[in-house]
Amino acid sequence: MIGGGQGAFIGGVHRMAMRLDDRFELVAGVFSSDAERNLSTALELGIEQARCYADHVALLAAEAAREEGAEIIVIVTPNHLHFPVALAGLEAGLHVVCEKPMTLTQDEAEQLARAVEESKRCFLLAHNYAGYPLVQHARELVDRGALGRLRHVQVEYVQEWLSETPPDDNRQAAWRLDPAQAGAAGCLGDIGVHAFQLAQFISGQRVSEVSAELITAIPGRVLDDNVQALLRFNGGARGMLWASQTSPGFENELSIRVIGEKASLQWAQETPNELWFKPLNGPSQRLTRRDDALSDGVSRGIRLPGGHPEGYIEAFANLYQALADKLSVDQPSAWLPGIDDGVDGMRFIAAALDSNQKQGAWTALVGAEDANE
Amino acid sequence: MIGGGQGAFIGGVHRMAMRLDDRFELVAGVFSSDAERNLSTALELGIEQARCYADHVALLAAEAAREEGAEIIVIVTPNHLHFPVALAGLEAGLHVVCEKPMTLTQDEAEQLARAVEESKRCFLLAHNYAGYPLVQHARELVDRGALGRLRHVQVEYVQEWLSETPPDDNRQAAWRLDPAQAGAAGCLGDIGVHAFQLAQFISGQRVSEVSAELITAIPGRVLDDNVQALLRFNGGARGMLWASQTSPGFENELSIRVIGEKASLQWAQETPNELWFKPLNGPSQRLTRRDDALSDGVSRGIRLPGGHPEGYIEAFANLYQALADKLSVDQPSAWLPGIDDGVDGMRFIAAALDSNQKQGAWTALVGAEDANE
Amino acid sequence: MIGGGQGAFIGGVHRMAMRLDDRFELVAGVFSSDAERNLSTALELGIEQARCYADHVALLAAEAAREEGAEIIVIVTPNHLHFPVALAGLEAGLHVVCEKPMTLTQDEAEQLARAVEESKRCFLLAHNYAGYPLVQHARELVDRGALGRLRHVQVEYVQEWLSETPPDDNRQAAWRLDPAQAGAAGCLGDIGVHAFQLAQFISGQRVSEVSAELITAIPGRVLDDNVQALLRFNGGARGMLWASQTSPGFENELSIRVIGEKASLQWAQETPNELWFKPLNGPSQRLTRRDDALSDGVSRGIRLPGGHPEGYIEAFANLYQALADKLSVDQPSAWLPGIDDGVDGMRFIAAALDSNQKQGAWTALVGAEDANE
Amino acid sequence: MIGGGQGAFIGGVHRMAMRLDDRFELVAGVFSSDAERNLSTALELGIEQARCYADHVALLAAEAAREEGAEIIVIVTPNHLHFPVALAGLEAGLHVVCEKPMTLTQDEAEQLARAVEESKRCFLLAHNYAGYPLVQHARELVDRGALGRLRHVQVEYVQEWLSETPPDDNRQAAWRLDPAQAGAAGCLGDIGVHAFQLAQFISGQRVSEVSAELITAIPGRVLDDNVQALLRFNGGARGMLWASQTSPGFENELSIRVIGEKASLQWAQETPNELWFKPLNGPSQRLTRRDDALSDGVSRGIRLPGGHPEGYIEAFANLYQALADKLSVDQPSAWLPGIDDGVDGMRFIAAALDSNQKQGAWTALVGAEDANE
Repeated sequence: MIGGGQGAFIGGVHRMAMRLDDRFELVAGVFSSDAERNLSTALELGIEQARCYADHVALLAAEAAREEGAEIIVIVTPNHLHFPVALAGLEAGLHVVCEKPMTLTQDEAEQLARAVEESKRCFLLAHNYAGYPLVQHARELVDRGALGRLRHVQVEYVQEWLSETPPDDNRQAAWRLDPAQAGAAGCLGDIGVHAFQLAQFISGQRVSEVSAELITAIPGRVLDDNVQALLRFNGGARGMLWASQTSPGFENELSIRVIGEKASLQWAQETPNELWFKPLNGPSQRLTRRDDALSDGVSRGIRLPGGHPEGYIEAFANLYQALADKLSVDQPSAWLPGIDDGVDGMRFIAAALDSNQKQGAWTALVGAEDANE
Repeated sequence: MIGGGQGAFIGGVHRMAMRLDDRFELVAGVFSSDAERNLSTALELGIEQARCYADHVALLAAEAAREEGAEIIVIVTPNHLHFPVALAGLEAGLHVVCEKPMTLTQDEAEQLARAVEESKRCFLLAHNYAGYPLVQHARELVDRGALGRLRHVQVEYVQEWLSETPPDDNRQAAWRLDPAQAGAAGCLGDIGVHAFQLAQFISGQRVSEVSAELITAIPGRVLDDNVQALLRFNGGARGMLWASQTSPGFENELSIRVIGEKASLQWAQETPNELWFKPLNGPSQRLTRRDDALSDGVSRGIRLPGGHPEGYIEAFANLYQALADKLSVDQPSAWLPGIDDGVDGMRFIAAALDSNQKQGAWTALVGAEDANE
Repeated sequence: MIGGGQGAFIGGVHRMAMRLDDRFELVAGVFSSDAERNLSTALELGIEQARCYADHVALLAAEAAREEGAEIIVIVTPNHLHFPVALAGLEAGLHVVCEKPMTLTQDEAEQLARAVEESKRCFLLAHNYAGYPLVQHARELVDRGALGRLRHVQVEYVQEWLSETPPDDNRQAAWRLDPAQAGAAGCLGDIGVHAFQLAQFISGQRVSEVSAELITAIPGRVLDDNVQALLRFNGGARGMLWASQTSPGFENELSIRVIGEKASLQWAQETPNELWFKPLNGPSQRLTRRDDALSDGVSRGIRLPGGHPEGYIEAFANLYQALADKLSVDQPSAWLPGIDDGVDGMRFIAAALDSNQKQGAWTALVGAEDANE
Repeated sequence: MIGGGQGAFIGGVHRMAMRLDDRFELVAGVFSSDAERNLSTALELGIEQARCYADHVALLAAEAAREEGAEIIVIVTPNHLHFPVALAGLEAGLHVVCEKPMTLTQDEAEQLARAVEESKRCFLLAHNYAGYPLVQHARELVDRGALGRLRHVQVEYVQEWLSETPPDDNRQAAWRLDPAQAGAAGCLGDIGVHAFQLAQFISGQRVSEVSAELITAIPGRVLDDNVQALLRFNGGARGMLWASQTSPGFENELSIRVIGEKASLQWAQETPNELWFKPLNGPSQRLTRRDDALSDGVSRGIRLPGGHPEGYIEAFANLYQALADKLSVDQPSAWLPGIDDGVDGMRFIAAALDSNQKQGAWTALVGAEDANE
């Protein structure tokens, strides 16, 4: 594991997700650039001191030299390190689990995609919301035609936590507001890309064009903290995307509505154990994890009977479970987010930044044209 | 009353709204261009046959000649008749209650505005959602600064009822889908303008620019039945507006969220007796009609104790109640929608149509620039 | 109308309900025992002074003497006057609309039942919650067998408004807390009887036995302000009833759940436009007023399309509409609450008071045994 | 671990709960009385074959003989084995984690209590719903006086899964419906006791008397599958308890409402990340895990920021986390359910069975009288 020292958020989530099904063992890491924090984190996690490294280069070299060295590298650093570490990991022959946004630029993303292809290694991108069983069920309902031809996708990801200038010791906030570590996209890259991925994931369509406006609500901030965008999908649907980190009272309100000619779907991350299916002219139905129509693939990610709530960690664990399935029995996962999601995400970010520069002009996702054919 | 014959929808609502507080009497009308339906409607309503007229010209002439002729003209016809009838009504010295969208064009709207000003008559535009007490309370909370400076307005009005080509005998649908009667804006004019009005009403800011895409989901249909738009407000807020009449499972889902620097508000028309106040970092609060902080003006529109649900008709009746107050005691209503809302609405429609023609380019609401100063 | 002077609550509701469909005219009344308030209420309502009477005896005599005297007497007084006024009204040949609880005692109720039968007049008991279309739909779903054999009925009516000792000038509270005016049952008679009626109304079963505990939460109060009871129904279902007027944060939370072997139903008065149908092993469905399966009888009480909320006044108006239908075209109403509901309600109150005296012993509703056969 | 073989439910939950924070290691077990299933479960869990035992006697003997033998015994068997295994575990000097209901009888419970006291070992009873942070917060709000004196507790636990006679191969159902394995209480012992514990846990009051009716809805079934009961608490509150396993459409609907003189609380297990605080006359507040007022003890059980849903497994893991805290740093946990909850639970079951025999007569919880002083 690279990153995830004490005080970080997502590293700990990865570790809990790995533990839940007991199919991974954390054996080595670079948890912090601060040597003391690095070591104390390792010790707390029960990792032997010898396998707590100063940087990822040292880790990769040393682990390669071990008989039973690490096989997977998990990257939970600030954004700017995703690309070099992932590339190095692939080159060292490791599978990669990487946080989003995948890279800082579209170029890096495409370069990484080539490296993945050449490496024949697995690449898992941590679009964890795809791990929720009912998100996967939504995707399958669309795929089975339960909604008919899609008309509209309404997606939003709204938070409050950057509504004010954060205190200096908020390490989560510090790197996210710093272009050198976060990249050129702020809210857009941090959560907008989650909303984008979810929209493509469930709709089964790819965004071909975007008209975006990036807003910085807090004076003095460099990066956007609010995004409003219109979308055109390659399958004909239209859509709207709203991402915000400056909306008081919103904790982690990622939600999506997909409108088809025969029915609509609604799902919201804060109540992840229900999925609304709204047929034309009929009563809306509250689907839950006990729904009869769940495929085996979806059911695999359910650990508890209906009515026993599963949450964020369980969904996250489903990414790792699917990865373990893939590595152990080479079971192809229909849904595991990977390098393609990452490339699309970085194309979306690039196009949105570009559209914003051009006063919201509709801007094609470069590379996405092929998908239109 | 002009319009509102048997089989119509909104005319009946106006009549129930008038009756609820017993401050108006329906005395004359032209209920249909179909003579038979016209008369049978009148009889059913207990209106004497002599005051059931063939057209509004006849009505205005005859009523003017009566000792106690009608004092108010209520226009509940298809859109294309709003302007000529309203103009004629004002010229005859009557107060006017008119359905939205106010006119077919911005020119007509501005012409009507001049006529209202010259006439010194009251002009009530039926933006009935402004009649809900908690909508008025939301507006006052914004005005009092409870949200701080506004950042974002998210408004939507989503229906399913035109998701398919309606049967020929659906008279409600027929005129709405016919540009000759509905005007150049379909869904945009029918419900988009309600969402627009609500956004301005609560935020206290005026939309200065719009970037819009109009979509026609149903093949063969001439007018838009879906609208997605980005908004810029003159007070600095941004916003998004989605209107749709082709979204299965959505009955009449008008809702709005207003994001400020200190708190956010949420209100949805289908659950109108609750208003969510979401302060930064604090628990969200479910305000109801019993909220202590309601002003006298808002309380005036409440007929029942908290927990006894009031709905659409009661909100509509509040328009009439406020009109009656204004006419009887010349009590100025802070909130009664009128000619200015109508002019703004038609400017919005014109700018949205224009933006759509120009591939979503940001388009100023002509006339609205002044408001920016 | 007897009662309903300025400052009263339910009288005004009756008047709005009557007006909504314009099928009744309020022509005479005794609005208050306070002469001044009586007259000023009459004038405010546009009733001629000559028909504003000092008491119901005077009213009945004078109206009987008129060519077109009042035909219906509406009783919206404190409880202790229901019985004598209703009886006098029937004897004078008028139809009766009466508030609940119908009388002070079971004896009075049975005496009144005989008077109704002899009089051949209509008797409407204001169990207004039966007027909600989805409550009627729930009743029909049970009757059609959509739930299978019933197992359990869970009903509650919870309010906060008597959580503290009310101020002296709260006239609503004053008579309700006074046994001389309210009778021997406090919360039990005021709202418990609504919950009871709703349970019987929807389940189609009659309560045969009750085990009740009456509680007085506020020191110094004479009557119960909290009721908890277990129920046995004559069709085999069991049930629980909770009524409270001392529960902070509860405005008017009447709700019911009916459990059958095939499905369950849920309805709550504060969100009256949705009815939950929960089939065994399947997704719960949110039925609304647009549900296809509504009978003509239920549809008759719907004035607006789905998604346009109807509330308390509309439900109340449905009682008057059904009464008007009955009187004008002698259309039998399947659901209009009447004298039988009143007798059952008073039997329930008597049995609950008795059970409470006997430390919660199961107590039969006297007279209800016949229903078991 | 005793129990929890393949096909069981709760054993797997315990294992996931233990893993989440990585503070326990599963080293030995008797997973099934079926030798083959026993072994295959052990192998699947990565337990060495030598530590997979034929029964708990063998396990305790062998582990005692090991240098680093098991220190804790986790009992996830059918009910009838809880008592003998727990007793044997304590006698062998192990800490005990035990599923509910703690024993088959009140006598066993009291005997076990004495054994716990003598052993000086920790005893954790798996009342997992106490592990939810917002349940603990509710308890603390009551304790701090935020509700004032309590008036009423409304608790229910409603499921559908035994609505029909289950198929023979449903092992979960089979032992629960068999008095030899489940004891004399069916639904009452399986989930009624959870509701009871939750009511005491949050209210801080103990139930002193119960009036209960036990119902068997499904013909041919021996044990109760529905419970309705009235409660009296030693602090003066009253309450109602409903437990059902035959209610279609209810998945795992455990919920509680606590009514005080100043405010009420509501919590429902299926939406565990919100807690409603309903003050008298004020707006209801939706408290979440980010609430400022959370104590350190409650915060300790929160692994994710607000808006990132935590569920059943996380709450369960909080039991193990608190146990680990207690064992490692001897940190006393204010809330960890233990032997006292178990004794009270069995007293409640005994009293409810007794009351049911006596036609619902109020029946004291024997032993609970002391608590009243």
